[in-house]
Amino acid sequence: MAPVAADCPLCREDGGLLLARHGQFRVIRATGPDAEHFPGFYRVVWNAHVAEWSDLSEADQALCMRAVSAVERVVRQHLRPTKVNLAALGNVVPHLHWHVVARYDWDSHFPAPVWAAAQRGPDGARLAAVRAALPACDAAIAALRF
Amino acid sequence: MAPVAADCPLCREDGGLLLARHGQFRVIRATGPDAEHFPGFYRVVWNAHVAEWSDLSEADQALCMRAVSAVERVVRQHLRPTKVNLAALGNVVPHLHWHVVARYDWDSHFPAPVWAAAQRGPDGARLAAVRAALPACDAAIAALRF
Repeated sequence: MAPVAADCPLCREDGGLLLARHGQFRVIRATGPDAEHFPGFYRVVWNAHVAEWSDLSEADQALCMRAVSAVERVVRQHLRPTKVNLAALGNVVPHLHWHVVARYDWDSHFPAPVWAAAQRGPDGARLAAVRAALPACDAAIAALRF
Repeated sequence: MAPVAADCPLCREDGGLLLARHGQFRVIRATGPDAEHFPGFYRVVWNAHVAEWSDLSEADQALCMRAVSAVERVVRQHLRPTKVNLAALGNVVPHLHWHVVARYDWDSHFPAPVWAAAQRGPDGARLAAVRAALPACDAAIAALRF
């Protein structure tokens, strides 16, 4: 049985739009406030309640990182970002999850991280173009075989 | 030969205090402004000028991630952080480097990411205690065999 923490939102819920479910992890697309200015915001969430990356065995790290890398490749192919940002922070929700975020040189925060202060206002037309590409990107992630 | 970009600071310089050098990557401790409020701020820098994580082969990813994980374990053992933050962003310097940052629930930004706005002022005494533990942490990283 995977460890579960009663008060952990990532133990209770998928954490976003569920695209792929593996025995040990799932892939979601963020749908809350995070996605407003960063539509191509995906997460690989480890199913077990594990806080730190180095708590995983090397085999589990390899499995998880294959998923992160596969999601990144699909994001690059379908969303054509300037850069992909990867992060496992977990200060608020200490349940291992990798952020995989498509960044664009025109986005509201670039080149700062998505968690920093905005550098400029959102570009509605370009954001809409990214959003239009999400269904195909989501479908390609859902079709991944890990 | 590893690809090199003439205008890339991580191709020109180590990027911080060099602790370990491997044929394909190096481990440094950040010594600039990043370290002022986050003394336990390490980076695993891929030597070749590669922008995206998914540009690495699976074998190179495994090698790099073993290093990230080993650094994280040393940081946890020596610096006893509340949480370790991992990130590969590269929006400013698109040369693959992993941030490995010891975070504390009393630090100036916790639980926000280090790139976000400060939540409170720095705690000088606690920062000094972390800095006092850096030499042993650095030595343990320098002693890692990848």
